[in-house]
Amino acid sequence: MKYSPLFWPIQLKGSTIYILDETLLPDKIKYIKVKDYRQAARAIKEMKTRAVGQVILVFYIFLLVIRQNKGRKNLSSLLKKVANTINASRPTLPFKVITDMVLGWDKAQLPVEKCILGFLEKLKNFRIQQAKEASKLLKNKDVVLTHCNISGLMPLIAEFCLKKNKKISFYVTETRPYLQGARLTSWELNRAGFEVTIITDNMVAQVMHEGKIDRVIVGADNLAQSGDIANKIGTYQIAILARHFKIPFYVICPPKSSAASGKDIKIEIRPEKELLKFGGKSIAPKGVKGYYPAFDVTPKRLITKHIHLETKR
Amino acid sequence: MKYSPLFWPIQLKGSTIYILDETLLPDKIKYIKVKDYRQAARAIKEMKTRAVGQVILVFYIFLLVIRQNKGRKNLSSLLKKVANTINASRPTLPFKVITDMVLGWDKAQLPVEKCILGFLEKLKNFRIQQAKEASKLLKNKDVVLTHCNISGLMPLIAEFCLKKNKKISFYVTETRPYLQGARLTSWELNRAGFEVTIITDNMVAQVMHEGKIDRVIVGADNLAQSGDIANKIGTYQIAILARHFKIPFYVICPPKSSAASGKDIKIEIRPEKELLKFGGKSIAPKGVKGYYPAFDVTPKRLITKHIHLETKR
Repeated sequence: MKYSPLFWPIQLKGSTIYILDETLLPDKIKYIKVKDYRQAARAIKEMKTRAVGQVILVFYIFLLVIRQNKGRKNLSSLLKKVANTINASRPTLPFKVITDMVLGWDKAQLPVEKCILGFLEKLKNFRIQQAKEASKLLKNKDVVLTHCNISGLMPLIAEFCLKKNKKISFYVTETRPYLQGARLTSWELNRAGFEVTIITDNMVAQVMHEGKIDRVIVGADNLAQSGDIANKIGTYQIAILARHFKIPFYVICPPKSSAASGKDIKIEIRPEKELLKFGGKSIAPKGVKGYYPAFDVTPKRLITKHIHLETKR
Repeated sequence: MKYSPLFWPIQLKGSTIYILDETLLPDKIKYIKVKDYRQAARAIKEMKTRAVGQVILVFYIFLLVIRQNKGRKNLSSLLKKVANTINASRPTLPFKVITDMVLGWDKAQLPVEKCILGFLEKLKNFRIQQAKEASKLLKNKDVVLTHCNISGLMPLIAEFCLKKNKKISFYVTETRPYLQGARLTSWELNRAGFEVTIITDNMVAQVMHEGKIDRVIVGADNLAQSGDIANKIGTYQIAILARHFKIPFYVICPPKSSAASGKDIKIEIRPEKELLKFGGKSIAPKGVKGYYPAFDVTPKRLITKHIHLETKR
């Protein structure tokens, strides 16, 4: 199995974290070196990494801090400080689930470093199983529409299909304003040898109407206890459209967060300038406002199937 | 009443046509000079002008040809040739309705120049009446979502509202890939003094869900006999979402075309490069395909109200 660079976009070597700068893809494959937890939190805020990259990064930040402070007396209070910094970086992401987990290990006086490494190993295996699980839902010649980027899982799904002699292809929304679909998903699918066609975010109904789409598969940044999910802005309307056109809508899920339902997930509002500019150039006249909710919530009733992280093998 | 430059974006002076180059807005207000019908047809194909600008341009092309060929014996056959060139320029637009009208006047030996000028005067008045009619559907403080650009009618609607002490404001989708919403609609509303907020095309469900939108108003490039309409790509999914969220969806219509229903309207597929680039810069890796249907069809059942061109005064 070959993995996309996006499948595990963060590396930790000694006490340096290497973050794949996803803002530069597909033009450049460049890793940002980080030696400090505040720098790392800033990389999250600036969306240098996203999705599973953020999850891995949060764990690596704790490993970094632990390695840099071996033998320090008040390490626990430092870890709490680190947790607070991370939790405050982006509101929609359930970082607290992760930071609470780490603080919990520390409180229980478990070997935190070992616990983190063990957890990440399990995460990696679970994600591979999720891709396998998703591949079982697909038939030969299926065309899958996806939105944004699910960190290397799409090419993996396609590879699992290929092993069973099922050839699938993809449509991907460009995913404005950050263009994860055009820049990341199309890139990782194309380099893995799979057919992929980009559409703009306003073409979804038309391609569904034309019968071009057999299934929708998206990821999720937050899975509430109720089964509602938060994912990249635009996911909600694709779910409504999929229901309208009777197309199955699958979600590859993270572990459940503490949110009881979608209503309890806070939606991050990002600066309007990120939406009113493209490639440094303004696309709108001065004085015009922009509104940029970075996520939306898709209610459980619109989801055909959740592919959970704790997939049975 | 002040008019947006987009309300009547084409001028004819002597035997020169001045076409407002909408691809340069809002950075530059520049008019392209055209002295030849083939050049003018090319400007349509390259989308230098669009929507009502194309309609006006088609009539002005005939005026130009007539003025340049006064006394010519075989003018009728030249007019037919001109009609064919125009009809072939963009498939979804019902240019044939216009060119047939002009050829009909010629065949009936009517004074074609006078007929065209009379028709355009009526068109102008009808459009103003359409804006007035639309304004009657709005209440004070309504927030209107619009898509693409309806050639100066949005500011006019807002001004008619203001006359009745109704203050309305706007959300506009940026309308990828040509960005008519961000570049044209937000520009003409802002310069006319109305509040306008840009969203990307994938935020429609979210802003509707948040209760930010009271009405949707869009234009149409083709109105079939059945009441189905073709309009800029993305209109169809906004109509589905408006129905989902129970928000009225109004369409400002051109005259009916010869298409019996939406199925009879041919959808123009434009070059993928127009979609895979953003501001001249490639947004996708090499080898990845794009699909660019430039229009979609919204069925009559999703339209709350058609505002017809032949509005009663």
